[in-house]
Amino acid sequence: MSAIRLSSPFRSLISTRSLPSSRRLTRPFTMTTKDEFKQQPHKSVIIVSDPRQGSSSFAMLYIDFLCMYPVRLIVITPASTVFCRIPGPIEVADEVLFANAHPSMSHISPDFIPVFGDSIRMTREVLLTKSGQPFLISGSGTLGWDQVAANLVEQGENALVLHSGYFGDSFNDCLETYGANVKQLKAPIGRAVTSSELEKELKSGKKYKIVTVTHVDTSTGVLSNVKEVAALVRRISPDTLVAVDAVCSVASEEIRFDDWDLDIVLTASQKGLGTPPGLSILVASKRALEVYKSRKSPPASYYASWKKWLPIMNAYESGTAAYFATPPVNLMYAYHASLQLIVKGEITLSERLKMHKDASRAVKDAAKRLGLKQLPELEEEAANGMTALYFPEGLTASDILPRLAKRGVVVAGGLHTAIKDKYFRIGHMGLSVVDAQRGDVNTVIRALEDTLKEARAAKLA
Amino acid sequence: MSAIRLSSPFRSLISTRSLPSSRRLTRPFTMTTKDEFKQQPHKSVIIVSDPRQGSSSFAMLYIDFLCMYPVRLIVITPASTVFCRIPGPIEVADEVLFANAHPSMSHISPDFIPVFGDSIRMTREVLLTKSGQPFLISGSGTLGWDQVAANLVEQGENALVLHSGYFGDSFNDCLETYGANVKQLKAPIGRAVTSSELEKELKSGKKYKIVTVTHVDTSTGVLSNVKEVAALVRRISPDTLVAVDAVCSVASEEIRFDDWDLDIVLTASQKGLGTPPGLSILVASKRALEVYKSRKSPPASYYASWKKWLPIMNAYESGTAAYFATPPVNLMYAYHASLQLIVKGEITLSERLKMHKDASRAVKDAAKRLGLKQLPELEEEAANGMTALYFPEGLTASDILPRLAKRGVVVAGGLHTAIKDKYFRIGHMGLSVVDAQRGDVNTVIRALEDTLKEARAAKLA
Repeated sequence: MSAIRLSSPFRSLISTRSLPSSRRLTRPFTMTTKDEFKQQPHKSVIIVSDPRQGSSSFAMLYIDFLCMYPVRLIVITPASTVFCRIPGPIEVADEVLFANAHPSMSHISPDFIPVFGDSIRMTREVLLTKSGQPFLISGSGTLGWDQVAANLVEQGENALVLHSGYFGDSFNDCLETYGANVKQLKAPIGRAVTSSELEKELKSGKKYKIVTVTHVDTSTGVLSNVKEVAALVRRISPDTLVAVDAVCSVASEEIRFDDWDLDIVLTASQKGLGTPPGLSILVASKRALEVYKSRKSPPASYYASWKKWLPIMNAYESGTAAYFATPPVNLMYAYHASLQLIVKGEITLSERLKMHKDASRAVKDAAKRLGLKQLPELEEEAANGMTALYFPEGLTASDILPRLAKRGVVVAGGLHTAIKDKYFRIGHMGLSVVDAQRGDVNTVIRALEDTLKEARAAKLA
Repeated sequence: MSAIRLSSPFRSLISTRSLPSSRRLTRPFTMTTKDEFKQQPHKSVIIVSDPRQGSSSFAMLYIDFLCMYPVRLIVITPASTVFCRIPGPIEVADEVLFANAHPSMSHISPDFIPVFGDSIRMTREVLLTKSGQPFLISGSGTLGWDQVAANLVEQGENALVLHSGYFGDSFNDCLETYGANVKQLKAPIGRAVTSSELEKELKSGKKYKIVTVTHVDTSTGVLSNVKEVAALVRRISPDTLVAVDAVCSVASEEIRFDDWDLDIVLTASQKGLGTPPGLSILVASKRALEVYKSRKSPPASYYASWKKWLPIMNAYESGTAAYFATPPVNLMYAYHASLQLIVKGEITLSERLKMHKDASRAVKDAAKRLGLKQLPELEEEAANGMTALYFPEGLTASDILPRLAKRGVVVAGGLHTAIKDKYFRIGHMGLSVVDAQRGDVNTVIRALEDTLKEARAAKLA
């Protein structure tokens, strides 16, 4: 099956990546653009056009014109792809994808330094923090756990892990690797840990260095109330750090780093942040940095050590380069491009979050109409960037997933080991939610309807 | 100044990335290609063409033709860039760059699994090993040190670091972080550790768990004789592991993993392997894996733990997916594209190494003619993928580097702290050496000649 990458009847986008964002051109290529271009001809130009919708001849004109200049010109026509609807890696905007194909740059070049620096600054904007310290490090989201465990917890100190799925066990495992004494509060499958359980534990007399909570556990789609967790910890045990595993929630769920008085938010590039995978993104509070600075023992990891990375982040943010390990230069260009769409684009961050809520509502309502039960038991504990659904009575993964894929909707199977084969997961984060022209949410809902009809009919036949 | 990305008088390349490598088309787009294409139309197509050399109208024909199909089409015309001639990140082939812009894919999708699996297999081919176990992990080259230190050395065990520059200190630092008892043998600046020093140390009676050697220290351009080091260790202390930091040598210097009986070769994607930065690449011998498996304590890192990664590598190589952390999907496509050029391209690996030697010889001879002294003291200890040169008497970085940059040749300053301001470094790895049509080596030499003439004249004026 062949899908059209750009779903509008006609759309043509030219983005001049080397210009400051204020001059990013999203209008069609006109004579005015040509004049601007003549004055500053050395640019990269991306043209995204859909020739089957009549823009092909326009693309030719651009090429004819632009070929007179020594520009790097990329024309993209629609791909024939089956869309990936898993809860990460998500599909990313064309601008992000092609920023990832930026020509090789030195990591210490004057061109790259502000890209890194601005990415640090914009990361703060996404998390609504003024004083938080971002760390942008080559690695998977998993590396964020190492950063927390190796920099903030010392041998034998107590850590409390609030468990709402698979990723709680992993954070536990990571903390123990670096010597923490870990206790887990485990919610039943489909639930988050309740405030009363947490309150009881915090009042038990045991002093916790850190409490960790998975904001959205990708294995279950359960959303924890991070604001409430943080408030409770702050009230009962003010020195205890609050670390949020927000891999599956940043830019798809509300996170107010400063207002909620969080200490750590750790995430990765490939989910709500709409960038290919490979960047570990973490923000630490002043309180967390103080705890790190007053460690008695040195950080227990080399690659994840803030002793190594803090000077690098400070250098790039202040406009100079520094070296510990080569940053993922291309991916940083991609992350930068995505951050610009998120914090400086036409859609505000709060509108973006609202759109995730609306898309989630639409998918979950449709699932309910179709008789599909959500894995999260409570509405208020269901994530807005993904939906986890039990297979209906009598149907299994092999009845549902291939039929969805046939309709261009690739979803993910179960991940929580105890119920792995009983449910599936749909992602609705980033581009597919924010770019209404794509109509992705409707595509998913329609595919779900058709799939269930066909699967049920096949069982009866 | 404007440079032409493709230096041939006329060149047009079509690569169909989704085909197996044997069907990669490097010939111009002909009617035959069109017929093939009609039979299997759902592909990604990249056209690289230089319109200023007459191929523009050809590109138009391709577009006209291809636009009839639902393909993802990318046309690239020459960039106006200043070429990066630092010793990594290096410039990468267009095919690699655009594989990095592959549309988002699930890390467990049937399309991606063989890309990961083949990358593992081709990594072995590059290092000439049959039984070595590759680890491909999202991260910088630095993460390779953590893998060595956290998986192979236990608390209080002895490690010997052969120091030929900046990176010896870093490896030392990493080993100590995870509890090793480290001794360094430090060569004078510009030299590698001699065999007799190593032999003396190995015979001192102290039992070493591991000896590490930096194959090419990027800070000095000093090439160590890894074959000799390994032979010596194997003869005198057969159980001691030999770990080679080959970040700046894989695919630009000869490495025979099996023949030389090495235990670890660790590297990164952004140098000789011609891929953007962000992938930590390590190969471990059976002996090393045995040592890891018989550890008394668990691995001392979580993110770098082979306990986590070995099952992942085994799964992807055997054609199934497994999850520990999301792999850098796009970068893996890029690495795969570059590996195909290296091990399945028109130029064999040994021809590639020969080309690096020739390019290096040309640059070093030119430098000598121009009165520039190399940092490595001995010819046989000078790397083939880079050249480190002292500034000539009376001239400094500010006299030389901006003038080279003005000529489109961006080089790197000094890195070794003791002599940081006294020298500079030129990279000649990968594409710029292997793609003769680019004429990069001559560009560098000419820029060096002109720069010195101009700088000396300016001093006299």
